[in-house]
Amino acid sequence: MGNTFGQLFRITTWGESHGGGVGVVLDGCPPRLALTESDIQPDLDRRRPGQSKIVTPRKESDTVQILSGTFEGRTLGTPISMWVKNEDQRSDAYNEMAEKFRPSHADYTYQAKYGIRAWPGGGRTSARETIGRVAAGAVAKKLLRERWGVEVLACVTQVKDLVAVVDPEQFTADQAESNIIRCPDAAVAERMIELIEATRSAGDSVGGIILGVARGVPVGWGEPVFDRLEADLAKAMLSLPATKGFDIGSGFGGVTLTGTQHNDIFRNVDGRVRTLTNRSGGVQGGIANGETIYFRVAFKPTATVFHEQETVDVKLQNTTLKPRGRHDACVLPRAVPMVEAMTALVLVDHALRHQAQCGV
Amino acid sequence: MGNTFGQLFRITTWGESHGGGVGVVLDGCPPRLALTESDIQPDLDRRRPGQSKIVTPRKESDTVQILSGTFEGRTLGTPISMWVKNEDQRSDAYNEMAEKFRPSHADYTYQAKYGIRAWPGGGRTSARETIGRVAAGAVAKKLLRERWGVEVLACVTQVKDLVAVVDPEQFTADQAESNIIRCPDAAVAERMIELIEATRSAGDSVGGIILGVARGVPVGWGEPVFDRLEADLAKAMLSLPATKGFDIGSGFGGVTLTGTQHNDIFRNVDGRVRTLTNRSGGVQGGIANGETIYFRVAFKPTATVFHEQETVDVKLQNTTLKPRGRHDACVLPRAVPMVEAMTALVLVDHALRHQAQCGV
Amino acid sequence: MGNTFGQLFRITTWGESHGGGVGVVLDGCPPRLALTESDIQPDLDRRRPGQSKIVTPRKESDTVQILSGTFEGRTLGTPISMWVKNEDQRSDAYNEMAEKFRPSHADYTYQAKYGIRAWPGGGRTSARETIGRVAAGAVAKKLLRERWGVEVLACVTQVKDLVAVVDPEQFTADQAESNIIRCPDAAVAERMIELIEATRSAGDSVGGIILGVARGVPVGWGEPVFDRLEADLAKAMLSLPATKGFDIGSGFGGVTLTGTQHNDIFRNVDGRVRTLTNRSGGVQGGIANGETIYFRVAFKPTATVFHEQETVDVKLQNTTLKPRGRHDACVLPRAVPMVEAMTALVLVDHALRHQAQCGV
Amino acid sequence: MGNTFGQLFRITTWGESHGGGVGVVLDGCPPRLALTESDIQPDLDRRRPGQSKIVTPRKESDTVQILSGTFEGRTLGTPISMWVKNEDQRSDAYNEMAEKFRPSHADYTYQAKYGIRAWPGGGRTSARETIGRVAAGAVAKKLLRERWGVEVLACVTQVKDLVAVVDPEQFTADQAESNIIRCPDAAVAERMIELIEATRSAGDSVGGIILGVARGVPVGWGEPVFDRLEADLAKAMLSLPATKGFDIGSGFGGVTLTGTQHNDIFRNVDGRVRTLTNRSGGVQGGIANGETIYFRVAFKPTATVFHEQETVDVKLQNTTLKPRGRHDACVLPRAVPMVEAMTALVLVDHALRHQAQCGV
Repeated sequence: MGNTFGQLFRITTWGESHGGGVGVVLDGCPPRLALTESDIQPDLDRRRPGQSKIVTPRKESDTVQILSGTFEGRTLGTPISMWVKNEDQRSDAYNEMAEKFRPSHADYTYQAKYGIRAWPGGGRTSARETIGRVAAGAVAKKLLRERWGVEVLACVTQVKDLVAVVDPEQFTADQAESNIIRCPDAAVAERMIELIEATRSAGDSVGGIILGVARGVPVGWGEPVFDRLEADLAKAMLSLPATKGFDIGSGFGGVTLTGTQHNDIFRNVDGRVRTLTNRSGGVQGGIANGETIYFRVAFKPTATVFHEQETVDVKLQNTTLKPRGRHDACVLPRAVPMVEAMTALVLVDHALRHQAQCGV
Repeated sequence: MGNTFGQLFRITTWGESHGGGVGVVLDGCPPRLALTESDIQPDLDRRRPGQSKIVTPRKESDTVQILSGTFEGRTLGTPISMWVKNEDQRSDAYNEMAEKFRPSHADYTYQAKYGIRAWPGGGRTSARETIGRVAAGAVAKKLLRERWGVEVLACVTQVKDLVAVVDPEQFTADQAESNIIRCPDAAVAERMIELIEATRSAGDSVGGIILGVARGVPVGWGEPVFDRLEADLAKAMLSLPATKGFDIGSGFGGVTLTGTQHNDIFRNVDGRVRTLTNRSGGVQGGIANGETIYFRVAFKPTATVFHEQETVDVKLQNTTLKPRGRHDACVLPRAVPMVEAMTALVLVDHALRHQAQCGV
Repeated sequence: MGNTFGQLFRITTWGESHGGGVGVVLDGCPPRLALTESDIQPDLDRRRPGQSKIVTPRKESDTVQILSGTFEGRTLGTPISMWVKNEDQRSDAYNEMAEKFRPSHADYTYQAKYGIRAWPGGGRTSARETIGRVAAGAVAKKLLRERWGVEVLACVTQVKDLVAVVDPEQFTADQAESNIIRCPDAAVAERMIELIEATRSAGDSVGGIILGVARGVPVGWGEPVFDRLEADLAKAMLSLPATKGFDIGSGFGGVTLTGTQHNDIFRNVDGRVRTLTNRSGGVQGGIANGETIYFRVAFKPTATVFHEQETVDVKLQNTTLKPRGRHDACVLPRAVPMVEAMTALVLVDHALRHQAQCGV
Repeated sequence: MGNTFGQLFRITTWGESHGGGVGVVLDGCPPRLALTESDIQPDLDRRRPGQSKIVTPRKESDTVQILSGTFEGRTLGTPISMWVKNEDQRSDAYNEMAEKFRPSHADYTYQAKYGIRAWPGGGRTSARETIGRVAAGAVAKKLLRERWGVEVLACVTQVKDLVAVVDPEQFTADQAESNIIRCPDAAVAERMIELIEATRSAGDSVGGIILGVARGVPVGWGEPVFDRLEADLAKAMLSLPATKGFDIGSGFGGVTLTGTQHNDIFRNVDGRVRTLTNRSGGVQGGIANGETIYFRVAFKPTATVFHEQETVDVKLQNTTLKPRGRHDACVLPRAVPMVEAMTALVLVDHALRHQAQCGV
């Protein structure tokens, strides 16, 4: 249960860290979209371990294969099955994980819920699970770009207490991709990278904040009440590993303003209804108002640290655990394509829902 | 679309501010739960206009009626239909709303999406829509309490820049209900109330933060991947009117810690696996770990302010608007039962889902 | 559970025979459709008890009220809540039902499933439950007619062993409505009516077959694999009370043909692809091919007969039961609008789904 | 869209005849069920081409691989991804299919719906699509057998006009599997086989009827109203390729009885409520009553016949088509495991739904 996301543009992901592979089935993609692996692989490469000195050095090529749903390079309207074979399966490196619950990981809750757990590599709780999301998200991003002119992008704006200055309306994908932490503020990016390297050397980890943005979303996408655009985005983001918070537009900061200060004034600008400010974050009453959608996602520091920590084993005895192996000291650079993917999936789903109800 | 919430304990709400009424159909409620209107009305009274001097003085009794799904005071397992008739329909007070889009309201986006809009009282965007949620949430809260010993509660912890000190593990419903702002920190509550009254007199509005809590949630509720408990809670909260953010456990504050500082250490305490701290907020990998679940919800200041504001009319001409009538200067005290309701709905849904898959 | 039908044009019905009323919430209706109670009531009148001498003489006006989802006579795109108040609640007439399970009714299975049962009037198993379907179906029929030029109709083609000759391509609604059994074959209709009257006098009941038809369905509606048009129609029909079978096109009769005899040959007719025969019943691979969709629905004889029958009571003791009261000796004339309603609901749902995926 | 079946025990199938393969993702399987490929392969072998002289001689081993969802031979509660690689891809044998619409196939409707079509081997309309269903169905059958003692089986009861006598309460899987047509009536089976061989030699095809049965289903499984057990079974069966009809219990034959003749009388038999007859087919009001569930499924004759037939090409010009290659002259023996699989999937889904709502 819980492995499907979306109503009309719907993905189902599958796979454990050390089984046959990880993958996704995407159902509901409109037909006749040009699509090959080359549309997918670049985002997987941005998500991949080993891509830079500040992420986990695990060696996985994460090469995607499209198994169904396309013909002669175009989508058929039928399910698109994509997968990545598992390669790096050194389960011996993880033997202690069979016996002990890693602090602030999901080992204990999985064991308690299911009475069984695929401990090698963390099983289904591994970040490898997000491969399917990123692959499907790449399809969604292409659809958004080509059919509706919508641009989805994300970047890192905070690592621990290093805060970058980023304008959601202005930063570009090139700026975000110009450094390995994916922060468009080059000066702060430099310091973020140094901080992560130092943290990594110390066997510790850090978290931070990712900014997600969608520009050009047509007025009208989104549903009132439960499936508001911001509600679905919040769910999408909190479904990513290691996330602890989401806010949109003025967000948590907006609570200190008065209504008069906070309201976005409508004006007719060149024949279009625009708002002079964008504290709403591009969404009003759950429905896009045509302004840029932007939101923040809080990521906790990676749970795997290379100090000895106290914990409990599967027999509920107190013990200690000192992880070995290879992990991200900071998940943020690899999480940027995940945030983009989930954003794009939410938007295409709402595009199709809007088209269904209001398209005639 | 978008008016249904939940998979197994599923509500569908309906109703505009000025139509026949507002209501909810709750499908999937377990049979044989004792249930009458007296279980529902108290929470509706906590949500009701006119309940105190700091909320809108509109006169609506909001008396709920159960139309189906019970027999001789017990639930049947069939859909429970509940509704509240609309009373206060002075649509003449709102005539300007037919012509002009209120800033930071959903008037414009509804009009753009649907090409039609029930302008009196805000139609479906009215906070009256939450009546159905609160009614169904009262059923969920009763189920949680009686079948699983789970307690759900919420309180106000911040109004504008007034911040209360509230311990999620300790505060009681009685403390929260002991004042009209629903803040357990009595000293700060006093100042909050004064602030709201002053703001109201000035024709302005304020926002703030509500803390939601669930205690006693059994280990194992929640699903991995997309339907994580925190993801569904985030969606539930961001589906409430005027919300701009959600975080759980350490939340946005946790991003400044290192992993070593942030990790919750497991210990065997009296034969149970416990964590020594609770930065996870009671959820790990999307699944409850038995600790208290707590989260924050950010509410923006109410969009209706009684100053003249610039805006656009339905013919897209620039104009001005000065609202009349009666509105909350601060939505928080009335939003507390909404947060509780949505929390309870998420939890019962996951309780039933867990029972379905892992109950044998 | 199980009280919602449809994915994008979605109804949730509620109500017991003797509670506050019965109703439906319709979510996903396109906006700006002209809609008032006068569009709904005629189909409810065709479903109503007491409409003719061959149906149950119960007195219920079944007057529908639209509570939400419209404004100034047009749909808003928000949920349309419709209900009918219960009137005829002579529960004393049914007291024996509290103690005994009626043969071939659902009294026993409800009791076994839920451990509780609303026995007056059959509770949720009452045919009154279909009021919500017929009301929503009337909206669907109007949409089909006005937006896509699709005509949905049904008629009785068999009562017990009296078989009418009806051409699915040709019969009209007027012909079907020209007599109280709703059979376009006037001669056979006469004999059907006589048979039902005689059966009724004898305290017995009969079943039969209804033919459902949709003309003008655009090529392309329907989905491959699980949600084939015929699969969704089959589910829709088998969800109606007293149904035991469904077939489409050549149906059960087609199994005695060879492939050469059975195949529908394609030809270009006036620039359109047509089939020379229509054994497919208008659907190929789950997708409409533009020909008339037609199917048969088998209804068992009404379970309530006025002879003394053996049965079991709620304490599982053998006993006997002789029903009193008022029941249909033949459900078919009242079931015709139900078949039309469910057909229309399936078609609009698929229209919107097609529009969502293939509409760009 | 439309490639997912089930609510709590949910499968999503994918794959075209000539792409990378075909497969299924099964979400919601209870944890800790012993499961390896050896539980799945036998049913795939019963579905496989080339298994006997009366089915298509195509050479495909259809070897299943489990990619996820199990660990050390037991299910994890996470998605079970299973697939079969495509082998026999002689697309040159089918070239004419690129240009012409085969009569009574779905070539035309797919092309019209999607504007694109994977013509080799029929693409997604190929019976290979059912591999995923049969694989998931094998898991469902094992669960039913081991956790609830429910037996699901099916057999052929009619081929063209050859009708076997089969008692739904009595026939065994061994009897059904004792001949290559899978009909427990050995004498009629012999003649069925001869008929199919003769038909095949003549380049023609035949259809028939499959009887599906579930024994030992607990009282209470099934939902009222839309998701009645018979409604979900009807949908499941009509979603199989080449099906044209479904009836349950007395079915279409029951319409000629009176209510007195048709009713199933309840009796206390050894402390259990039983019915003396079983015209209800094991379901009353959508809910299992503990008796054997049995139903019939009508299959049309295979559309591929090896005569020259008139048809239309993709440019809508009239033309002729004479298929070559290898096809089933009768799909029935291979469809038996498909009927079993869909039956088992419906039942497990309802078992889990019942457990969710009524399990406490």
